[in-house]
Amino acid sequence: MLVSRERRRGTLLAVGITALMAATLMTPTIAMAADDGATDITENGGATRNTEDRTAAVREALVDGPAKNVILLIGDGMGDSEITVARNYAEGASGAFAGIDALPLTGSYTTYSLREDGTANYASESASTASAWSTGTKAINGQLSIDINGVAQATLLELAKANGMRTGDVSTAEIQDATPGAQISHISQRGCYGPDKTSANCASEALENGGLGSISEQLLNLRPDVTLGGGSASFTQTAKAGPWEGATLFEQAADRGYQVVDDAEGLAGVTAADQNAPLLGLFTPGNFPVRWQGPEATVGGGDAAPTACTENPERLDTGLSLGSLTQKAIELLDNDNGFFLQVEGASIDKQNHAANACAQIGETVDLDEATQVALAYAQQNQDTLVVVTADHAHTSQIVGSTPPGLSVNLQTVEGGSMIVSYGTAEAGGSQQHTGSQVRVAGYGPGAANLLGLTDQTDLFFTSAGALELNRDLKSLSADATISASAAEVAPGATVTVSVDGLDADWQASVASDAAAAKLAAASSPQRDVLSGRAEFTVTAPTEVGTHSVTVTGAQTGVVLTTDITVTETPTTPAPTDPADGGAGALPGGQGGAGAGGGLAITGAAVPYVLLAIAVAMIAVGGYTIHRRRMI
Amino acid sequence: MLVSRERRRGTLLAVGITALMAATLMTPTIAMAADDGATDITENGGATRNTEDRTAAVREALVDGPAKNVILLIGDGMGDSEITVARNYAEGASGAFAGIDALPLTGSYTTYSLREDGTANYASESASTASAWSTGTKAINGQLSIDINGVAQATLLELAKANGMRTGDVSTAEIQDATPGAQISHISQRGCYGPDKTSANCASEALENGGLGSISEQLLNLRPDVTLGGGSASFTQTAKAGPWEGATLFEQAADRGYQVVDDAEGLAGVTAADQNAPLLGLFTPGNFPVRWQGPEATVGGGDAAPTACTENPERLDTGLSLGSLTQKAIELLDNDNGFFLQVEGASIDKQNHAANACAQIGETVDLDEATQVALAYAQQNQDTLVVVTADHAHTSQIVGSTPPGLSVNLQTVEGGSMIVSYGTAEAGGSQQHTGSQVRVAGYGPGAANLLGLTDQTDLFFTSAGALELNRDLKSLSADATISASAAEVAPGATVTVSVDGLDADWQASVASDAAAAKLAAASSPQRDVLSGRAEFTVTAPTEVGTHSVTVTGAQTGVVLTTDITVTETPTTPAPTDPADGGAGALPGGQGGAGAGGGLAITGAAVPYVLLAIAVAMIAVGGYTIHRRRMI
Repeated sequence: MLVSRERRRGTLLAVGITALMAATLMTPTIAMAADDGATDITENGGATRNTEDRTAAVREALVDGPAKNVILLIGDGMGDSEITVARNYAEGASGAFAGIDALPLTGSYTTYSLREDGTANYASESASTASAWSTGTKAINGQLSIDINGVAQATLLELAKANGMRTGDVSTAEIQDATPGAQISHISQRGCYGPDKTSANCASEALENGGLGSISEQLLNLRPDVTLGGGSASFTQTAKAGPWEGATLFEQAADRGYQVVDDAEGLAGVTAADQNAPLLGLFTPGNFPVRWQGPEATVGGGDAAPTACTENPERLDTGLSLGSLTQKAIELLDNDNGFFLQVEGASIDKQNHAANACAQIGETVDLDEATQVALAYAQQNQDTLVVVTADHAHTSQIVGSTPPGLSVNLQTVEGGSMIVSYGTAEAGGSQQHTGSQVRVAGYGPGAANLLGLTDQTDLFFTSAGALELNRDLKSLSADATISASAAEVAPGATVTVSVDGLDADWQASVASDAAAAKLAAASSPQRDVLSGRAEFTVTAPTEVGTHSVTVTGAQTGVVLTTDITVTETPTTPAPTDPADGGAGALPGGQGGAGAGGGLAITGAAVPYVLLAIAVAMIAVGGYTIHRRRMI
Repeated sequence: MLVSRERRRGTLLAVGITALMAATLMTPTIAMAADDGATDITENGGATRNTEDRTAAVREALVDGPAKNVILLIGDGMGDSEITVARNYAEGASGAFAGIDALPLTGSYTTYSLREDGTANYASESASTASAWSTGTKAINGQLSIDINGVAQATLLELAKANGMRTGDVSTAEIQDATPGAQISHISQRGCYGPDKTSANCASEALENGGLGSISEQLLNLRPDVTLGGGSASFTQTAKAGPWEGATLFEQAADRGYQVVDDAEGLAGVTAADQNAPLLGLFTPGNFPVRWQGPEATVGGGDAAPTACTENPERLDTGLSLGSLTQKAIELLDNDNGFFLQVEGASIDKQNHAANACAQIGETVDLDEATQVALAYAQQNQDTLVVVTADHAHTSQIVGSTPPGLSVNLQTVEGGSMIVSYGTAEAGGSQQHTGSQVRVAGYGPGAANLLGLTDQTDLFFTSAGALELNRDLKSLSADATISASAAEVAPGATVTVSVDGLDADWQASVASDAAAAKLAAASSPQRDVLSGRAEFTVTAPTEVGTHSVTVTGAQTGVVLTTDITVTETPTTPAPTDPADGGAGALPGGQGGAGAGGGLAITGAAVPYVLLAIAVAMIAVGGYTIHRRRMI
């Protein structure tokens, strides 16, 4: 797989991106400030955003795939109305966001979800919608990356990882929240962040009941290279089963080799992040505090004098702004094999629910900054597809006079008065999502697929197609190999069993047909698979004879078998100390990544927890057989 | 001018439009019904709208200008939410409109208008917004195609006519309503439909006060080749000044050569329409009745069982549907010199104001049919730019539960339940426009300019640029010529004075430096200029000597002068009967088009009414000097 991505990179078309940038991407901002200096919107042509025919420029912006990298930026609840509210406030009606508004290729997509009977639900929410672009499969409201039958659907982040790319998941929300959560987990209730809620509300999916575990635990299993957001509270809970039963998720993360940081200084100190030492930055117990605050929307609020928004003193260090996190993530993810990064501005939605216009707007400005960061990278790395879109539309509307529901009158950057209406819930209630199609905009290889009318599920195929992802997970682990440090060993000797090429598995477990009774007392036979590789230390049985050792990929169910012959006169001595590293030892600290130190496994079956993971994730791979769409 | 358009047509690039159609325009509809037959939205990929990478198809859809024809279809108040409401209802959430959703090149544009102080008004309405794309100049709410200083701004329809193209204006509203009105008039209050309201509310703009007259009277002056809509009531009013003072506007229309029809049968009987016999079809006194009706939106209405919409028994003959009118207009306008046609689905807005979801949806379906007609023509006539957009967004929102304001629960075509919320006005009030950016979508030469973020005023330049319109009106009449049927005449003889090439004038008037006293008793010296030509019959003075006769273009102010020598021994005999036709006589019935039959003008100044028109419209031409934007 690594080879094929290298090859692809080598054959990328040399696109005249400099001309493109001058002609298309930069046009909106240039147009705003160009010509005779000040733009007078009262003059003929004074309000236009373009100054010349753009057909040739757009033609140049149509870049064929493949893309090496994909950056998806999601404005949660950022419908066209929310974009316009924010632009009017922060840039003026004739202004333009330097990021969000600069993407040259634009369309709309539908965001409906599914009802339990399989019919369309015209009012979706963030879990079902994030699942749609994460997996290409429509979901039921509140569910994450499972289909209507509860079968896990492979996500873009999972597929990117399985295809040898680095992956990142960034949000201003709790990292377990719907949008970031859909890329990293498969669960029937979006609220099952940690072991406690999962045991209570998603019992059948809890680790102790053979499920995939909470969203946080699934995140730790999946091991994105970079995870940045809020939601540390869930990581103080303890696992209720599995290899880390009784340990907090923070302890588990450290044990599994994660670099865990919780502030800007800690983040700044991280200079690399990969499968050996992935970055987990959790900066708040819950969601990030918002950037701006302002007057409350009230009944009759539109009649008040217009008020400007102010900075929220609770805002995090600017080193933790969404733009800064995006910059850091890109720096860490940038590598020869490409990366997939999702960035969410979460509280456009949350503050829309709260009818808090200033907060909603500030979060949109935040997302715009993140978009500028992504575009700047894409300008320098022409093989990067950048997409900006929303999961669903929301309530806020610009109106001309005070409506009967909640409203607020804001004084915009240009001194104007803008009344924003929130009319889908009573004061104190949660304003509702709305079902309008939303804007989707892109730049880079494959972005042409965003034009016209698409569905949210198309974005999955557009992204996977641009990256030329092999979506058949099982096939990605099918060529894996297994080896033992010795083919013949003395009774009770220690043997290192290594697997390589399990690209679509993030855990694997070892078992043997011998001495099953010993397993019950042993530590977990599970290992994290890092870049397709894992290594197990096995204690040979005392009985002479040939015994088969199997390693099973937890996600694909691929089974690898090797034989170890126990003899009184072995021809190859087994290493006596696993820490020395056998023939299959991995570079880069794998020796310390396992749970409980060196295992003394002498065989037996995979424990029930791992079996459950395998079964569920085989189903993920299985969908490729039935897929309707070819990319 | 006619020559240059012929030339342009001859040099149009031969575009591989058949492949384009198969690959892009038709893709949305094909995708819906294709593949394995039934599409299951619960399956992976089952909800996607595309089935393959579309980069190449989009590349083919990028067609350079020029365009020969432009068809603008406006869904009044048809924001993205309104499109989605209608699609969900009429096509299902995963369905697609065969017209509206099929245009391959899409973007969003801002729709803000101006406050009187020149700052942005974030909540616009149909007059200011229609003025924006009609003229390229932002307007104040309620005003039609005048700038913030009240100076008339040339419209696309006017410019197309001045550039030798045929023109059409079609709406389901009163033809004087804001959207159709902005293309054909310049007035400070959109409600001044006829002479009565104009005298009362737009007094300074009334004919009797030297103004351009009511919207209806300006329409008659402009003389589009095809005008179809409602609003006949205003035409029963009588002109208060000018050549047709005391006559109804219907009488005036007939006198000026219009073919006036008022029903489907009459319309079906019209087989040609041009400057000599333009078509004026006014089928209702006010707005057209809507297509569908349904349950009223009420407080708590979302809690009711879902109800389907029904046909409105008051709907006009299907021969008068918007699709049928569009078909008829295109048939009549199709000609070697190209055409500009605007088509409005007006009551998406009006029924949104009324919180009438079914009516709003039915009108959207109507506009979709019109769009299908336009696209079918464009498929056969590859040099046609088709644009579908809205003037502004509106109130209706799809929500998941019953909101506190008005709502209604509709049973969609696929059996789903869709709650539509109207939350910007109390029951019985008028729901408000909203300020969101709206979708703009196109197909054909120049449509690439619609991508990304534009402003509504960009659409003017996109259309004018695609048609390569000369926007300097005065220059279009600058090469006009004048001739007299005789250079020397006997005292009191009749002379025919002809002008040709007054392409940017729709009226002209004759005057002479001799015998001023006689003018007071004469009929109006005004003539309609048809395709740049007009003819005047002048009675020579009795005094011998050389007298200059001038013809002034009413719109450009271009003045043409010829000398007539009165002598007792003329070398060229003057014709004794004007009906015989002199050297400058026009073919095609011009003889009967004037008011009051043959004039007996012997000179004197242009009457005040015509002077007023000239001054105002010179200003229209004048804007080109100051324009910021080059196309």
